[in-house]
Amino acid sequence: MKLYGMTDSGNCYKPRLVMAMLDIPYEHVETSSRDGTTRRPDYLAKNANGKVPLLELDDGRCIAESNAILLYLAEGTRLLPEERYERALVYQWLFFEQYSHEPHVAVRRSLLKYPERAKLATPERLSETLEGGNRALDVMERQLERSPFLAGAAMSVADISLYAYTHDASGGGFDLSAFPAVSRWLKQVEDDPGYVPMEPRRA
Amino acid sequence: MKLYGMTDSGNCYKPRLVMAMLDIPYEHVETSSRDGTTRRPDYLAKNANGKVPLLELDDGRCIAESNAILLYLAEGTRLLPEERYERALVYQWLFFEQYSHEPHVAVRRSLLKYPERAKLATPERLSETLEGGNRALDVMERQLERSPFLAGAAMSVADISLYAYTHDASGGGFDLSAFPAVSRWLKQVEDDPGYVPMEPRRA
Repeated sequence: MKLYGMTDSGNCYKPRLVMAMLDIPYEHVETSSRDGTTRRPDYLAKNANGKVPLLELDDGRCIAESNAILLYLAEGTRLLPEERYERALVYQWLFFEQYSHEPHVAVRRSLLKYPERAKLATPERLSETLEGGNRALDVMERQLERSPFLAGAAMSVADISLYAYTHDASGGGFDLSAFPAVSRWLKQVEDDPGYVPMEPRRA
Repeated sequence: MKLYGMTDSGNCYKPRLVMAMLDIPYEHVETSSRDGTTRRPDYLAKNANGKVPLLELDDGRCIAESNAILLYLAEGTRLLPEERYERALVYQWLFFEQYSHEPHVAVRRSLLKYPERAKLATPERLSETLEGGNRALDVMERQLERSPFLAGAAMSVADISLYAYTHDASGGGFDLSAFPAVSRWLKQVEDDPGYVPMEPRRA
């Protein structure tokens, strides 16, 4: 399998982390959505939506959307429950991540981190994403006060998905000390024997 | 089962349409996110994210997020494939819907439709959502030129999810005549024997 993605993108980190935890071999193909690569015809033929990450199977078939890739990879493993309601809760948190969390927590980080996005970082946009991100972190806090992981007692791809941008939320100006249950949960994910960091640690 | 939702919301229409197609009985509880109901403590106890739709099972357990509800309802039915890759494509389109389609196509409709949102309808916002919505419709068009339904030969919850706001895209100022494959596909969904419209037809 090949994974097209950017090292410093949380969405691209999600499948890398799941494949590390599940010990699935793959080839990483560094592919930037910031230099136009994902808008080139050869890439658009693989993903008409022109985004990363993208998983290419050995037979050439592709799967786009980070959370769809996670569900595909985790099928039949410890990271995705079989039971119908438990599974529905995993789905619930994955859609929460893409609709209520990423557009605030990740977008605010990108507005502050990437020089080419600085002109989009208006006071309204920074205030909107700060408010939306804190609201999302608060929803996670309420759940994590009641269960060890988001969808219950065991870690699932819902945790991996929400870990990706939450663990670096301070890069978007969020204060995680206001969310003690979230902070405890971040450490639990990092305690998994297969855990790998987003960017390789420098020597 | 109880479904909390608003009649004129596309996100709330999705599970109503799936339950009609699958002949699943339920009680509809009209619940508005525009009058503060979804921010009241009794509702927040069911869904900490304070949004509709919400599915409440007979034992009181709840599932939030429209597309998670669709996956839950469709498990084991004709609307969700068993085969792992086909299923992954359904997931892919459901995440595409929430990230790349709804925030443009549905949001532009709400900016134009609801008087209380008029002050948010700035020229920048209207132009951004028009561009993003047309881009999403174009991604759908490319797929629907190649297959009858989004995830392949058969209708799935991916089609129901994307139907919800696409069928009313003209309410957001989108011109569907520029997307002939999308227009053909809308009719195919409406041809399903279990199809019901978003708002009850007036006599």
